[in-house]
Amino acid sequence: MKIALSQLNYTIGDLEGNIGLMCKQIDRAEAEGAELIVFSELSICGYIPKDKLNYNSFIERCEMAIEQLARYKPNIGVIIGAPLLSGLENGKHLRNAALLLHAGKIQNTVYKTLLPTYDIFDEYRYFEPNTDFHLVHFKGVDIALTICEDLWNLENPGLYPVNPMDKLAELKPDLMINISGSPYSYNHVEDRRERMTNNARHYGLPLIYVNQVGANTEILFDGGSLFIDRHGNICEELSSFVEDFRIVNWNGEGEYSRDQSDFGDDDMRMIHEAIVMGVRDYFEKMGFKKALLGSSGGIDSALVNAIAVEALGADRVHTVMMPSKFSSEGSVTDAVELAKNLGCTYEILPIQPMVDSVNSTLIDSFTGKQPDVTEENIQARSRGLLLMAISNKFGHILLNTSNKSETAVGYATLYGDMCGGLSPIGDLYKTQVYEMARYINRNGEIIPEVIITKAPSAELRPDQKDSDSLPQYDLLDRILALYIEEQKGWQEIVRAGYDAEVVRKVVKLVDRNEYKRFQAAPILRISHRAFGFGRQMPLVAHYYN
Amino acid sequence: MKIALSQLNYTIGDLEGNIGLMCKQIDRAEAEGAELIVFSELSICGYIPKDKLNYNSFIERCEMAIEQLARYKPNIGVIIGAPLLSGLENGKHLRNAALLLHAGKIQNTVYKTLLPTYDIFDEYRYFEPNTDFHLVHFKGVDIALTICEDLWNLENPGLYPVNPMDKLAELKPDLMINISGSPYSYNHVEDRRERMTNNARHYGLPLIYVNQVGANTEILFDGGSLFIDRHGNICEELSSFVEDFRIVNWNGEGEYSRDQSDFGDDDMRMIHEAIVMGVRDYFEKMGFKKALLGSSGGIDSALVNAIAVEALGADRVHTVMMPSKFSSEGSVTDAVELAKNLGCTYEILPIQPMVDSVNSTLIDSFTGKQPDVTEENIQARSRGLLLMAISNKFGHILLNTSNKSETAVGYATLYGDMCGGLSPIGDLYKTQVYEMARYINRNGEIIPEVIITKAPSAELRPDQKDSDSLPQYDLLDRILALYIEEQKGWQEIVRAGYDAEVVRKVVKLVDRNEYKRFQAAPILRISHRAFGFGRQMPLVAHYYN
Repeated sequence: MKIALSQLNYTIGDLEGNIGLMCKQIDRAEAEGAELIVFSELSICGYIPKDKLNYNSFIERCEMAIEQLARYKPNIGVIIGAPLLSGLENGKHLRNAALLLHAGKIQNTVYKTLLPTYDIFDEYRYFEPNTDFHLVHFKGVDIALTICEDLWNLENPGLYPVNPMDKLAELKPDLMINISGSPYSYNHVEDRRERMTNNARHYGLPLIYVNQVGANTEILFDGGSLFIDRHGNICEELSSFVEDFRIVNWNGEGEYSRDQSDFGDDDMRMIHEAIVMGVRDYFEKMGFKKALLGSSGGIDSALVNAIAVEALGADRVHTVMMPSKFSSEGSVTDAVELAKNLGCTYEILPIQPMVDSVNSTLIDSFTGKQPDVTEENIQARSRGLLLMAISNKFGHILLNTSNKSETAVGYATLYGDMCGGLSPIGDLYKTQVYEMARYINRNGEIIPEVIITKAPSAELRPDQKDSDSLPQYDLLDRILALYIEEQKGWQEIVRAGYDAEVVRKVVKLVDRNEYKRFQAAPILRISHRAFGFGRQMPLVAHYYN
Repeated sequence: MKIALSQLNYTIGDLEGNIGLMCKQIDRAEAEGAELIVFSELSICGYIPKDKLNYNSFIERCEMAIEQLARYKPNIGVIIGAPLLSGLENGKHLRNAALLLHAGKIQNTVYKTLLPTYDIFDEYRYFEPNTDFHLVHFKGVDIALTICEDLWNLENPGLYPVNPMDKLAELKPDLMINISGSPYSYNHVEDRRERMTNNARHYGLPLIYVNQVGANTEILFDGGSLFIDRHGNICEELSSFVEDFRIVNWNGEGEYSRDQSDFGDDDMRMIHEAIVMGVRDYFEKMGFKKALLGSSGGIDSALVNAIAVEALGADRVHTVMMPSKFSSEGSVTDAVELAKNLGCTYEILPIQPMVDSVNSTLIDSFTGKQPDVTEENIQARSRGLLLMAISNKFGHILLNTSNKSETAVGYATLYGDMCGGLSPIGDLYKTQVYEMARYINRNGEIIPEVIITKAPSAELRPDQKDSDSLPQYDLLDRILALYIEEQKGWQEIVRAGYDAEVVRKVVKLVDRNEYKRFQAAPILRISHRAFGFGRQMPLVAHYYN
């Protein structure tokens, strides 16, 4: 039996658009002789629709879309994902479903058992878990059809007390199909391959695994759909970060057909592709024309500038240099050189007159007070104000240029350099920012070398350097990764060999700046613990884990 | 048996502080002859600690705190709430527990079965649900000890497929005790009383219900702990919005002892108390000294000003009037009159020089462009910048003055009037803002009458009125309540008798402004669907439910 794997980029809530995409793929699958086509989790409405699921009107529209799709081509079997009314007497009124459509109607429905509710996932907020296990019969083949997390509980101890595939294995299926909405993060791709091949090996069954691709605000889906034989060998792997389509010929066995050493991933290449896709989809799905950013001559804005140009094209990126009296000469000249290298437009707006005007407005209020961080923030907020004015006037979308290190320790001005509609590199530590800049320059200089080598500075007071206030970034980033990604308490980090005073300082800074991050722009997620919805901390609290 | 109900105001993560409070109440209970004292859900660490629960170091500190408390007074039984390691082979590694401490150690532990995961609740993110049911035996009494949501599934159909109290009832308990972390919202207080009295009546058992009080950032707990007899009569109800302590004498029966008509609540009085408590706790728990706000002579800032003075005292509130050339004369004079009525300090900072400076900085960039909303936003952001500068210089915390109506439709400037550390009235519709202003003036004019009666205007262009851009607030607020609180789709709202064009416009405005709310200050929650964590919408999506 020929089975088509369809890896698409869905838009949340765009039911017509999503169905349109799916119909085209159904046409292609039929034309190429497939008897079954498999789409990914919640493909009807896009993953994950969040509280739109609470609207009955939304669920009704999903139901109509399913009917429409069922009637589209009655001869081919179609597996889709959708939210469905549970029909249960008690429990939540929705379930996360996989449906087999054939001959004009819904032939079979299975529900998700394991509902991820951690990190960015919140499925138990909406869905009642499945407790009833059956196979899906299609043209003589007994399929163990599961949804994403249902195959992620093979390990012992597991995160869930039940393992749905154990239940289905008892029913002697011929084939496993898993429809998934599994976001990218570095490390996750390897982990996913390992878990899926382990499933195939453990149950001695071939596995078709279909994931979606594309960005839904912060969440980046890489695709990487798989066909794995019963020995756990990967026979097919679909592309990363782009839509893809593949027909596999399932002969009742599945065969080793490919050198397994193909699958070494270059982390920085994938992270870069993920972020470029994230910026592109944000603009495409929202219909935004042009990006805007403040270009300071520093590494962070340079990287965002290069990413924006790659994602959108140089003609859709505008940069603004906003020097003050504390700005180095290179601040403007390096940023201009970068803009010229990239071919995007730029303008120079000195902020000193505006800053002077603010200071003179406040002169009586501040009588007897010494200059402090207030005056630094006034500069950052003046820049934010100018950028937002340009954004409002021209409809350009402001990209935030903060990195994860400074977002973590609050080395950023709320309503100043924290302004922006999207934060492309807010999940990249400063050391990773450098790595990616080098990666972008791998075939020749795009980001001027001087931008990469100059000492990091906010340039908000004379001769300021980041290292005046913060530990060196290589040290800082290692402590931050232990505290944020690994969720180690400060004493554990000290026991891992770091200086107690430095660790306490860093941890305190992270804790005390929750309030800033609460109002930050959405951050493209590339790690397994990004700031935002995936890390939820109380604001009013005694901290110090 | 004398049993003490202890209704306290916990601070999240402040284990020492929380235990200190609890020890004092244990002393008092013992002095007054109680044999058992009951605290509320997660009392050790405060409800709800969010992702601090992911830190092993945090759980270890909770364990140490429990031991400390167990050893404190061995003669009295103490029921507390805490997160505990599950000890299960599979499933999440934590459970939400209620513990009976006595004779220096943990005598019994029960776990929460029903884990609320909707609205602002996210407990399945952290905890494995209980599946094992037993009574807690203490001095000859068999107690059905449950945690909050466990008593909220009496109705049929219920939100959960199991009803833990049904299981416990089979074991023939003498008494029900429920420890709770149940936040305030209007309607919720009546609902809670009804559900708890229904439980007592349904199972024919007396019920002791202990809730916490106080604000944890956005979430406001009203207390209102209860002692209900087996006939469903409320014998004792503890105070709302303040700490309280009560000893009840459980004689094996429980008796009707109080006129049930005491319990009529004045909604506006309670909402007002809730918000005042929210502002006060935000400052007290964070150690902030003084509040700051922009006072425009409009009703929203006037209300926030009055609330701040009530919460903190006049000497801890500073207001700033920032007229532009579009400001009416009353803008300053009315705001000054208000400040004088309230006795707080104020200063006047005209923004025109600063706005002119911004405009002249942008004059080349905007060549050939007509004035539009950009110039309005420049004014709002200039004010935000000045307020944040004062905040930075003096350490005052800026209060946001947005209401729910304007937050809903995006009638607010991001990084402008949306600035602030806390939004006290962001869950009050404009019509409720007027109601509360009248409530504040109930014993004499505090908010000048002219502020209440003038037509609402942002005063960002000549002769501007809110009604130029928006439907009248009484109509707008009714549509918003249907869309936001009741989660009706636009077609349903039209079917309820509203004009289709108006409804579509309002719904579109709400949807298109998700991006602004994503970066909004935390909003004190007084409805069952406040903006913020309790309403999670995708940013990139096709909307229009």
